[in-house]
Amino acid sequence: MPIVQCVPNFSEGRDLEKIEKIVQPLRCKEGVKLLNYEGDKNYNRLVVTVIGEPKKVKDAVLESIGVAAELIDMNNHKGQHPRFGATDVCPFIPIKDMTMDDAINLARELGKEVSERYGIPVFLYENAATKPERENLATVRKGEYEGLDEKFSDSNWAPDFGEAKKHSTAGAIAIGARRPLIAYNINLDTKNIEIASKIAKTIRHSSGGYRFIKAGAVEVSERNMTQVTMNLTDYTKTSMYRAFEAVKMEARRYGVNVMGSEIVGICPMEALIDVSAYYLGLENFDLSNVLETNLME
Amino acid sequence: MPIVQCVPNFSEGRDLEKIEKIVQPLRCKEGVKLLNYEGDKNYNRLVVTVIGEPKKVKDAVLESIGVAAELIDMNNHKGQHPRFGATDVCPFIPIKDMTMDDAINLARELGKEVSERYGIPVFLYENAATKPERENLATVRKGEYEGLDEKFSDSNWAPDFGEAKKHSTAGAIAIGARRPLIAYNINLDTKNIEIASKIAKTIRHSSGGYRFIKAGAVEVSERNMTQVTMNLTDYTKTSMYRAFEAVKMEARRYGVNVMGSEIVGICPMEALIDVSAYYLGLENFDLSNVLETNLME
Repeated sequence: MPIVQCVPNFSEGRDLEKIEKIVQPLRCKEGVKLLNYEGDKNYNRLVVTVIGEPKKVKDAVLESIGVAAELIDMNNHKGQHPRFGATDVCPFIPIKDMTMDDAINLARELGKEVSERYGIPVFLYENAATKPERENLATVRKGEYEGLDEKFSDSNWAPDFGEAKKHSTAGAIAIGARRPLIAYNINLDTKNIEIASKIAKTIRHSSGGYRFIKAGAVEVSERNMTQVTMNLTDYTKTSMYRAFEAVKMEARRYGVNVMGSEIVGICPMEALIDVSAYYLGLENFDLSNVLETNLME
Repeated sequence: MPIVQCVPNFSEGRDLEKIEKIVQPLRCKEGVKLLNYEGDKNYNRLVVTVIGEPKKVKDAVLESIGVAAELIDMNNHKGQHPRFGATDVCPFIPIKDMTMDDAINLARELGKEVSERYGIPVFLYENAATKPERENLATVRKGEYEGLDEKFSDSNWAPDFGEAKKHSTAGAIAIGARRPLIAYNINLDTKNIEIASKIAKTIRHSSGGYRFIKAGAVEVSERNMTQVTMNLTDYTKTSMYRAFEAVKMEARRYGVNVMGSEIVGICPMEALIDVSAYYLGLENFDLSNVLETNLME
């Protein structure tokens, strides 16, 4: 049976009542499993992970997008993470017995339904993108919610579904298909966001760092610290330990220490096993030596 | 459906033809999956891991024990690992939908059959032991093959199945039930077995070290090094990283370096995830954040 993962990100990370309402359609549905949801106060953003049967996951997520459009007014939204919609992004990841093309088709179906049902303009991104310049989410979202009117005045930025006009409260949405990604944050014992930002620049691809790291800096004010916040877009080629050690190494320059790290949402086993194998210097070890690999087949 | 793991150890780690013959009954059987087998030349020992349906696994292993009894003559066996039989030990580990009692019953059934069919005396050990002093494998095996005649002259050491008389070529066998164990070896850049042995003593329970570490020292002559060889008998309480860092720390005293490590056979995912979580200083992370945990339910 095919299994898809879907990781919608909603622009609400603080109001627990709203968060529960947004997540509600993903609960207790046959064929859909809510794995994880985490509101981030600094980002003012909610990251949800669901897995299950493709069509059932898509239908449940469609409902959540509707709830978010009702509850979130982007005109009043503030947070440290770039965003342009109430449901900001919604990627599908093929997990089992399905291809990337299947995931792309699912993204298209959802896109069509979102525009028709809620009147929200939809951009398809990453593997589902219809033009090369729409592959990168950062490019699609550039200008954020506040820049949507200007974006839609450019004919190059006509949405893939819906009219070239922002939804008055829900903005726009990016729906896509992609490989699994790890949302990984490293904590620094400094409040100085400049330092975190400089470190982020050294490790990320866009400014000369590792090929499969996207990174930025954020303040975590309630803990008097900053974070290098990352997306590891291909953990088989840029491992988590490499990101961790690189940040540690760069931080030394500023007399700053790495205090720990966190994975947001769900992480594939393989990525973590690789970390263990590195630190223990494991010889001749691979996934087939892991008991659970053998139980799943 | 219940799933059991079985890890028979055979006293042949060098002759590839014999190894293949011993392993053959575990191949291509419905309901039995051969996960891994590895002959160790220094130990002159073969460790095999199979999983599957309890009764089918037991029947297949019974066949392998018969092959080993035919092919291995303990009177000519030399190796660095303690042993007292052609099939030296055979533990059952409950993996899924079965209790430790189920595993103990399986050990008893196999024990009865081994003694009846092959005339090999059987000791039940660990959770399957019939007396407290038989729980510890090292105690059961004390004196090794060469000491079996003396052992059987002591009425306290009557076997649990079969006559109190060693099999003339296959010796004796220890059959048991236990929790999952990790066979873990750490490589040292010294040829000096004394140093490896001193380090092993500092970390193992029996001489004052960690509660769930059994450890010894071996030479790995083909690589000009030694190993601290361990069984981690409860990785939830004594983690792999702790063993690794403790050996590293003790080795410093002798100007010796840890060059890496190896896991022999199969390792539960949880043990490796814990290692990653330690080295990355992961906050708020548990098995439910691992994708595969959610796929298996």
